[in-house]
Amino acid sequence: MSVPEIPKEQWAQVVETVGGPVVYKKIPVPTPGPDEVLINIKYSGVCHTDLHAKNGDWPLEVKMPLVGGHEGAGLVVSKGELVTDIQLGDKVGIKWLNGSCMNCSFCRQTEEPLCPSASLSGYTVDGSFQQYAIGKAAHVARIPAECDLESIAPILCAGLTVYKGLKESGARPGEEVAIVGAGGGLGTMAIQYAKAMGLRTIAIDGGEEKEKVTLELGASKYIDFTKTKNLVQDVQKASADGLGPKAVLLLAVSEKPFQQASEYVRSRGTIVCVGLPAGAFLKAPVFDTVVRMITIKGSYVGNRQDTVEAIEFFRRGLIKAPYKVVGLSELQSVYDLMVEHKIAGRYVVDVSR
Amino acid sequence: MSVPEIPKEQWAQVVETVGGPVVYKKIPVPTPGPDEVLINIKYSGVCHTDLHAKNGDWPLEVKMPLVGGHEGAGLVVSKGELVTDIQLGDKVGIKWLNGSCMNCSFCRQTEEPLCPSASLSGYTVDGSFQQYAIGKAAHVARIPAECDLESIAPILCAGLTVYKGLKESGARPGEEVAIVGAGGGLGTMAIQYAKAMGLRTIAIDGGEEKEKVTLELGASKYIDFTKTKNLVQDVQKASADGLGPKAVLLLAVSEKPFQQASEYVRSRGTIVCVGLPAGAFLKAPVFDTVVRMITIKGSYVGNRQDTVEAIEFFRRGLIKAPYKVVGLSELQSVYDLMVEHKIAGRYVVDVSR
Amino acid sequence: MSVPEIPKEQWAQVVETVGGPVVYKKIPVPTPGPDEVLINIKYSGVCHTDLHAKNGDWPLEVKMPLVGGHEGAGLVVSKGELVTDIQLGDKVGIKWLNGSCMNCSFCRQTEEPLCPSASLSGYTVDGSFQQYAIGKAAHVARIPAECDLESIAPILCAGLTVYKGLKESGARPGEEVAIVGAGGGLGTMAIQYAKAMGLRTIAIDGGEEKEKVTLELGASKYIDFTKTKNLVQDVQKASADGLGPKAVLLLAVSEKPFQQASEYVRSRGTIVCVGLPAGAFLKAPVFDTVVRMITIKGSYVGNRQDTVEAIEFFRRGLIKAPYKVVGLSELQSVYDLMVEHKIAGRYVVDVSR
Amino acid sequence: MSVPEIPKEQWAQVVETVGGPVVYKKIPVPTPGPDEVLINIKYSGVCHTDLHAKNGDWPLEVKMPLVGGHEGAGLVVSKGELVTDIQLGDKVGIKWLNGSCMNCSFCRQTEEPLCPSASLSGYTVDGSFQQYAIGKAAHVARIPAECDLESIAPILCAGLTVYKGLKESGARPGEEVAIVGAGGGLGTMAIQYAKAMGLRTIAIDGGEEKEKVTLELGASKYIDFTKTKNLVQDVQKASADGLGPKAVLLLAVSEKPFQQASEYVRSRGTIVCVGLPAGAFLKAPVFDTVVRMITIKGSYVGNRQDTVEAIEFFRRGLIKAPYKVVGLSELQSVYDLMVEHKIAGRYVVDVSR
Repeated sequence: MSVPEIPKEQWAQVVETVGGPVVYKKIPVPTPGPDEVLINIKYSGVCHTDLHAKNGDWPLEVKMPLVGGHEGAGLVVSKGELVTDIQLGDKVGIKWLNGSCMNCSFCRQTEEPLCPSASLSGYTVDGSFQQYAIGKAAHVARIPAECDLESIAPILCAGLTVYKGLKESGARPGEEVAIVGAGGGLGTMAIQYAKAMGLRTIAIDGGEEKEKVTLELGASKYIDFTKTKNLVQDVQKASADGLGPKAVLLLAVSEKPFQQASEYVRSRGTIVCVGLPAGAFLKAPVFDTVVRMITIKGSYVGNRQDTVEAIEFFRRGLIKAPYKVVGLSELQSVYDLMVEHKIAGRYVVDVSR
Repeated sequence: MSVPEIPKEQWAQVVETVGGPVVYKKIPVPTPGPDEVLINIKYSGVCHTDLHAKNGDWPLEVKMPLVGGHEGAGLVVSKGELVTDIQLGDKVGIKWLNGSCMNCSFCRQTEEPLCPSASLSGYTVDGSFQQYAIGKAAHVARIPAECDLESIAPILCAGLTVYKGLKESGARPGEEVAIVGAGGGLGTMAIQYAKAMGLRTIAIDGGEEKEKVTLELGASKYIDFTKTKNLVQDVQKASADGLGPKAVLLLAVSEKPFQQASEYVRSRGTIVCVGLPAGAFLKAPVFDTVVRMITIKGSYVGNRQDTVEAIEFFRRGLIKAPYKVVGLSELQSVYDLMVEHKIAGRYVVDVSR
Repeated sequence: MSVPEIPKEQWAQVVETVGGPVVYKKIPVPTPGPDEVLINIKYSGVCHTDLHAKNGDWPLEVKMPLVGGHEGAGLVVSKGELVTDIQLGDKVGIKWLNGSCMNCSFCRQTEEPLCPSASLSGYTVDGSFQQYAIGKAAHVARIPAECDLESIAPILCAGLTVYKGLKESGARPGEEVAIVGAGGGLGTMAIQYAKAMGLRTIAIDGGEEKEKVTLELGASKYIDFTKTKNLVQDVQKASADGLGPKAVLLLAVSEKPFQQASEYVRSRGTIVCVGLPAGAFLKAPVFDTVVRMITIKGSYVGNRQDTVEAIEFFRRGLIKAPYKVVGLSELQSVYDLMVEHKIAGRYVVDVSR
Repeated sequence: MSVPEIPKEQWAQVVETVGGPVVYKKIPVPTPGPDEVLINIKYSGVCHTDLHAKNGDWPLEVKMPLVGGHEGAGLVVSKGELVTDIQLGDKVGIKWLNGSCMNCSFCRQTEEPLCPSASLSGYTVDGSFQQYAIGKAAHVARIPAECDLESIAPILCAGLTVYKGLKESGARPGEEVAIVGAGGGLGTMAIQYAKAMGLRTIAIDGGEEKEKVTLELGASKYIDFTKTKNLVQDVQKASADGLGPKAVLLLAVSEKPFQQASEYVRSRGTIVCVGLPAGAFLKAPVFDTVVRMITIKGSYVGNRQDTVEAIEFFRRGLIKAPYKVVGLSELQSVYDLMVEHKIAGRYVVDVSR
């Protein structure tokens, strides 16, 4: 195919100072290195992490000025000399992990997200809230030709993260996973991935609307934490044999749900923490953890293989994430809604406008 | 072989009320059921758990009156009609897990210690501080004929527990495990098991005597927590590549060592809690746990197969536990020393006197 | 509930000499030992193994005279004194493994089918082709009250065996498994279990009828070995990325399909042998096996936990096995059809007539 | 450090036609690409594979003219612009896997040796029988500064291969591995790795000299196949409980040892094939493989992480491989000895002469 000419300048949303607003402006188009690709971004999901990056919430230094975004889907328009398995015109995605050294103890063992010199899209390097973004060829997500770039965007971070969390839970097909925060953006994807993986889901969230959504998506049971008098007991009863779910996926960790999880999870079960509330601690009684042999673990995005797998479930039509599309130029208004907790589901920005 | 006649009465140490002293007295010799054996106990180790049981320290009801003890080694003198794979005269051991249902979800999957109807020696059923004790045939430890009954006693609980903890760590041969409390009774056994398993050990404890002991037993490095200015940094430096040990075995959990462990353990590493300090909580920052993908888990004694394996390492001469022998009649004085923290190594009681 | 009185005599189908016919006659009702239950069998599946046992086809001595059958479902009518977790009136099943020692190296590690002193229903002990059969309480399948005894019978051996084979394949949700013999009795159950486990199936068999059946049950692709010019190439092409399926389940092992499997399975993939053709050998080129790191393994029925899991998938309505019911008195005619290869699907005998 | 100037020409041993002799001649020094390093080779081990490559024995096309060698140890003298974690002067090694795509399904999952576009040193690309060799930075072995370049050479292929084979066996510390061909070059290394990994070894080979060597290196038992009347029975008896070793490492696969292995390996055990005899087939009876649940698998060199681990055991002084050093110019005479089966242990060539 013929690839359109690459302009010298492009539109981008730029955070100029930590905590400041995003500024929609023209910036230069970057040039890929020998092991990189340049991607004409078409759509990008907007994640809470983008807001955390903009505001410098985390104990990890952020690049400034910064182009955020780490759920970008687009077409390859240029590539370095070492890139042989990607062709111009291929669909690819920018994800949280933009690159890693590929040689350290972690990269050698498929744990690229733990690489001490990993680069993070929209955090330590510029991300997908621009028309032309750079990604390391080893790390850009390969998107099958038949997939739609708009609807796949949220898979590149939200989908990948919950899929990885479910893998890390160690739950086998037929076993039960409780999902805390099952009715939210991550949770609804988690229910679908769980189902595709042969797992049964006990959905935990608040309110009747979330009950409806989670049961429609295939959850076996729904526990409303706003109504139950004894959450621990209700979750255990909801499991097939009354001994509790084999695993718990904590999408909204705070101390209370965490401690409860260690009470209702099955003996020899696993609690997987995925959410990253600022300053939170996980806490559990030593006695129970030991005599019930409970495992508590953190799960962080996913590696390159997890990405392929998460996308393949999407390609097969098993994962649908509800989202709204607005222009990239309107990004600040999306952040404003986030701050006001007025977002249900995912926002995707159309980078062309 | 001819088996000596079984008496009607025997000497035992009996706890008559929670918190009271042990009383050395004559009690009836019990009769084994169809799936049980009667064991003429020769030696029994004394464990901190015996003291906890006597004092009712744990949130788990204790039988009263109680014969304590769960590290008993002796000879089978009688057996039920269903017991075919044990012969009269065989050496066997009473361990913490006296019996379990063998049919529940946990027992079916080798997790007998998690069986809801498990019986616990010296806690929910009478244990090894008597001359004739009962054990479920499925659970009594098979002791090879060539093993000495005196020195194997501490293996039946202390040895088994640390061996299981090391297995649960997931550390592979060649990898490093930090052992917190490496110079104590459990710790010195853990160093030896770790070595036999091809693991390298970073010993953490306090004082020069413990430095000497742990290094002699084969620890690669010793960190003295009473002297270091930065424990976290020192432990990481002590690992071969400076990224921290793959696993941490916490033999003396309290909140401080636990939180430190989550800082110095290698990313993607595992912290195994074995100790059971009353009322303690484990606590770790969510952010680090997630982005470094740390696993925290409890490990509780060991199952029947772990027992076989722990004993086999002992049989091969790879595990030596220092211990002192006193008569069963002197048990109260051992408890007194325990209360005063005056015990280094293990006490073993000679049940014949 | 009140349990009906147990008669002294019962109807059974008895093989009186190796290779002889089954004789429908009255025999005494047995009495359960302390760890056994007596089951009033209602239905029993008929398996090829029953025919092998009757004819003494295998290198393993068979009890004579013999009551065959190892897929029996019924109600507990009597039990030994040690049986506490089963009540009179409970639904239970007789499976291939009637009992095992529960204490050997294999039983301790959930490998009960490998126990050197395992007893086999309808082979080394009498099985389910009688109205009252004995089973070790530790081994009888627990059947949920809501399950139908007629339709569950084939799950107890055929279902269990293919489910175990799929577990042994190591294929993870989303990965592909080729099933050789997918349109037969075992194969159609395997497709359904695979689907329930989140696996994708490449069905291999011969003829258009089997194409229809396998695709309706959820196979992703069908390869007709009677039509293909290059089976190896066609199977690899049928996999999502053209590199071949991650695993192969061989339900009808003979040398040819076996050797082909080692050619089309993905590198680092696994071939699981389940079928037991008399005198067959598995054979593969060393060079390919090594440089493609292929694993070949045998899978044999399933353990107690596998049984629970296989039944739970059935209980949830995910597994339907087509079968025909005839009276126990007509068993010989079923064998006759088997010999003539005239059986599609499973026969189940109604033990009451 | 200052790096010596790189010459334009160098001495090398070149195979000019398949099956022809090696020719010692001057050839140009190559230039590394952006992701490659140029290594001044000091020593290189000589492997049977080099002879197979020279003679075109395998069903895999070989580069011609060819510089063989894939156990080369030397110093980095030049590197491409993308190579950041290796410095000039670093000690590195050329191993069988010279490079791989790093992005395919296999590379993403640490299975680099299975990469369809892997390049093989001394086979599809020039290897280490020259003074200046090229390696992909992602794949060259990192050799710790304290290691000797002469004695580490055989670790880079022979050591790595047997270490990987032992890992693939799945044997856990304390379990037993039978090593077939234990007294040879690969076998003696395998015994040492096994010991370092906490495994026990049953050495199988022929003759009294090999008995002496293997027992001195730490094998638990030695079985002389030239003397035993019943190899299968003797191997099983040599295991601690008489049920056979958990795993078998086949270093010299031919049909007979392979079939024997499937008879004496423990039920649920694993047979690992490492050797590559031309045209050989592995063969086992289906019945035994299934009812004893035996696993047979191929193991092929090792990945990047395995390389790090194999070297680390060597660095710790746990692996000693006997070898003789001759000049690179004498390589043909080493091949001549190989053809005549006159080599015990490894030959290492000094590339400087």
